[in-house]
Amino acid sequence: MNSDLGEGFGIWRLGDDPALLDVVTSANVACGFHAGDPATMHRVCVAAAERGVAVGAQVGYRDLAGFGRRRIDYDLDELRDDVLFQIGALEGFCRVAGARVRYVKPHGALYNTAAVDEGQASAVVAAVRAYDAGLPVLCQPGSVLAGLAAAAGLRVVAEGFADRAYQPDGRLVPRSVPGAVLHDPAVVVDRAVRMAVSGTVVALDGTEVAVPVESLCVHGDTPGAVTLARRVRDGLAAAGVPVSTPGAGAW
Amino acid sequence: MNSDLGEGFGIWRLGDDPALLDVVTSANVACGFHAGDPATMHRVCVAAAERGVAVGAQVGYRDLAGFGRRRIDYDLDELRDDVLFQIGALEGFCRVAGARVRYVKPHGALYNTAAVDEGQASAVVAAVRAYDAGLPVLCQPGSVLAGLAAAAGLRVVAEGFADRAYQPDGRLVPRSVPGAVLHDPAVVVDRAVRMAVSGTVVALDGTEVAVPVESLCVHGDTPGAVTLARRVRDGLAAAGVPVSTPGAGAW
Amino acid sequence: MNSDLGEGFGIWRLGDDPALLDVVTSANVACGFHAGDPATMHRVCVAAAERGVAVGAQVGYRDLAGFGRRRIDYDLDELRDDVLFQIGALEGFCRVAGARVRYVKPHGALYNTAAVDEGQASAVVAAVRAYDAGLPVLCQPGSVLAGLAAAAGLRVVAEGFADRAYQPDGRLVPRSVPGAVLHDPAVVVDRAVRMAVSGTVVALDGTEVAVPVESLCVHGDTPGAVTLARRVRDGLAAAGVPVSTPGAGAW
Amino acid sequence: MNSDLGEGFGIWRLGDDPALLDVVTSANVACGFHAGDPATMHRVCVAAAERGVAVGAQVGYRDLAGFGRRRIDYDLDELRDDVLFQIGALEGFCRVAGARVRYVKPHGALYNTAAVDEGQASAVVAAVRAYDAGLPVLCQPGSVLAGLAAAAGLRVVAEGFADRAYQPDGRLVPRSVPGAVLHDPAVVVDRAVRMAVSGTVVALDGTEVAVPVESLCVHGDTPGAVTLARRVRDGLAAAGVPVSTPGAGAW
Repeated sequence: MNSDLGEGFGIWRLGDDPALLDVVTSANVACGFHAGDPATMHRVCVAAAERGVAVGAQVGYRDLAGFGRRRIDYDLDELRDDVLFQIGALEGFCRVAGARVRYVKPHGALYNTAAVDEGQASAVVAAVRAYDAGLPVLCQPGSVLAGLAAAAGLRVVAEGFADRAYQPDGRLVPRSVPGAVLHDPAVVVDRAVRMAVSGTVVALDGTEVAVPVESLCVHGDTPGAVTLARRVRDGLAAAGVPVSTPGAGAW
Repeated sequence: MNSDLGEGFGIWRLGDDPALLDVVTSANVACGFHAGDPATMHRVCVAAAERGVAVGAQVGYRDLAGFGRRRIDYDLDELRDDVLFQIGALEGFCRVAGARVRYVKPHGALYNTAAVDEGQASAVVAAVRAYDAGLPVLCQPGSVLAGLAAAAGLRVVAEGFADRAYQPDGRLVPRSVPGAVLHDPAVVVDRAVRMAVSGTVVALDGTEVAVPVESLCVHGDTPGAVTLARRVRDGLAAAGVPVSTPGAGAW
Repeated sequence: MNSDLGEGFGIWRLGDDPALLDVVTSANVACGFHAGDPATMHRVCVAAAERGVAVGAQVGYRDLAGFGRRRIDYDLDELRDDVLFQIGALEGFCRVAGARVRYVKPHGALYNTAAVDEGQASAVVAAVRAYDAGLPVLCQPGSVLAGLAAAAGLRVVAEGFADRAYQPDGRLVPRSVPGAVLHDPAVVVDRAVRMAVSGTVVALDGTEVAVPVESLCVHGDTPGAVTLARRVRDGLAAAGVPVSTPGAGAW
Repeated sequence: MNSDLGEGFGIWRLGDDPALLDVVTSANVACGFHAGDPATMHRVCVAAAERGVAVGAQVGYRDLAGFGRRRIDYDLDELRDDVLFQIGALEGFCRVAGARVRYVKPHGALYNTAAVDEGQASAVVAAVRAYDAGLPVLCQPGSVLAGLAAAAGLRVVAEGFADRAYQPDGRLVPRSVPGAVLHDPAVVVDRAVRMAVSGTVVALDGTEVAVPVESLCVHGDTPGAVTLARRVRDGLAAAGVPVSTPGAGAW
């Protein structure tokens, strides 16, 4: 289970980081470009390390005002370097906390763009390979990023979204479409368990889609997020699904 | 010999980085807070590594608009974390370039403030110690930062300025005072050699002051900077002063 | 009654702007340097205009990460120009909303610094005079800023803080001192009425201090802020104190 | 004749503003989002006013690191408000200089995007209309922006580029295509005169294209820019073309 954390900036806060850190096993920590400031990064890395939660670099566009949610047509070398910068900055705080960056996950519009755009996906892959070819990339199964990362010899960790509707081809229904986001906790928990146990999800059109996920993303910036995350975790436990922090040898 | 490098941002450039990298032995690379963007940092780290020039983190206030030259009354924990962030970000690019951050040098108003202010000096020391207690701090001999860093067990590398006037107590004459900056190349070269050979400088009042420096700072952002830097290096060579990149075992 | 509004940035929010706009008569709108983004400024200006609430430019240091609460040693011409920039930017949104900027109030560390520092106070005064010599400055009575503004022919609107402890000389007790901020609503309402009716407040040492205020500042970014603001307003009404938006001919 | 000015930021400079202000009749002043800081804006507005040069708001994306040259998929209301913010901020400095904003010209990727994208063009039009429906928009003839601005009742001022190659349909040849930028001063001057006198230009394929321009854009950020701008102005004078600052009644 992974969640986005450390997404405040300066005086502003978003989500309940400490509560989520008690539930998830992987923390996607914002690195200062779309959100996150040094003091927050430091605090989250220490708190994650204390709980044995794995820290990943949640890398985004340089766009505080847009929270990294607006697609930017980067020069690809600059995008690679922006990703490298963010990984390095987070690594410094991990080091201070006695940990290390364990994976990389693109944020927002970079996540969505790298899922379909070869150029931006390649820039992310180039950054991760240059930094540490053993560092896994957390992304959607079947995405362009997943394909290019695997082709480059990187470990791909496929993630699923229990609270999002899927299209029959395995992609997410865009947020702009009604029904794209699921709010009923019971439904979300059921989908989470199904994804984890059988690797499938029921798409918006009723067909069953294969989603071979290793990690489930739970959102932290909505009311009830922590409660929902805990119910998902309890549901997985009840179904006999082990939820573990990636081991030292694994991602 | 050290110099400030990588101090452009985006489309804007400052100084002639490649030319200076052919002269100096240590590059104080801006880390994005007062100047410097990821692409520039990447480029400078690679170019420095190719030439065997040591890379240091030139850490500054978060103040692009003021180029880090305006004193900011930071919360000290936030200052420590801002310094950590910058060291980590630069380390990522050093790693990609097959190098590592070899020292830390504060920039601009942080340099000046940490030279006299216990709080800000302590924040810099705390960041370096937390990150890597073996990382030297490049600063002025006799400064508050030098004292606190040494007391904390950090290696202090004392630096001198051949083109700046000194006060009888070993401090620099503020830039606002006429005569604070020396422009005559012959004079600057003479002072550089004297500092290196005898560890002394003649202060503004004519007295001889001890300045036990290990590194000479040459500025890169003025017209004629590269030529002057080369003359200083030639002058040191003519005087039989070895100018070397810090070794693996040294700073 | 005035309150700080529009102090979010991008995805982040601070305080309940619409609720406060239903209580106060003057909105100190953040202008993008310490907080506030264009969309927020637009929204607040329109909402204020609809309610007949006067809009003032809450000008701050260029310091999003520090929320304008860290003193910065600006070059004074640059500070003047930063203030001018913010007033102009807000004026654009007022114009669109069928209103205009009615006063200027410094924020955070600029407020505190301009209250005691002649240089920064002069920069604020220079900006306001250059922009519109008829624009009032909202600040503390007895401050350096109040004195310089009045000397420059600007209208000074004195403000008081019903929830802050005062020193015998009329200055605020610094937030770092225990008891500096008052939390008991009944006490705050009483002090508000006393300030408005008799122009006095009881200082921390029990002495009565003259505070000839024309506007009361209520804070919006704390839990219970809106409720407290409403109680203050009701208290003033019960005491027969008219609370009005500054008229077209007044500030 | 118009040129981009005030495109430095903080310590960094771009182009020779004073020299260009002696040649052009309209200054497209950067407003702080892609370039430009308050002190620079102030200085350029005063210098332009002294010379009788008209000031226009050169509005861009919020992207200092990318100099506004990377397309950003803005929410359109946010784009409108970002444009409004920039116009207002510049207006403040014009007011101080005894002038006013005389036109609006999008910069970089916003210029290119608004030339073909209805959404972003509409956002620019909405901002200008809301601010002042009498304010002209400077853009390419035949562009989507020109069409929507005209349809909304705004005055469109068509501009041409004497140093850029054109396609047979009247659009610019993208910079990535060899030959897109013309460097021979004699050729550039000839094209400028032809555009001004006959309203035509010879496209890359040799065909003659109608370009009914009212303003010629000369670039300021390249070596020799000022000399070239002066030669264009002299060439226009020799051809009997009046080059004038837009009058109070005109744009």
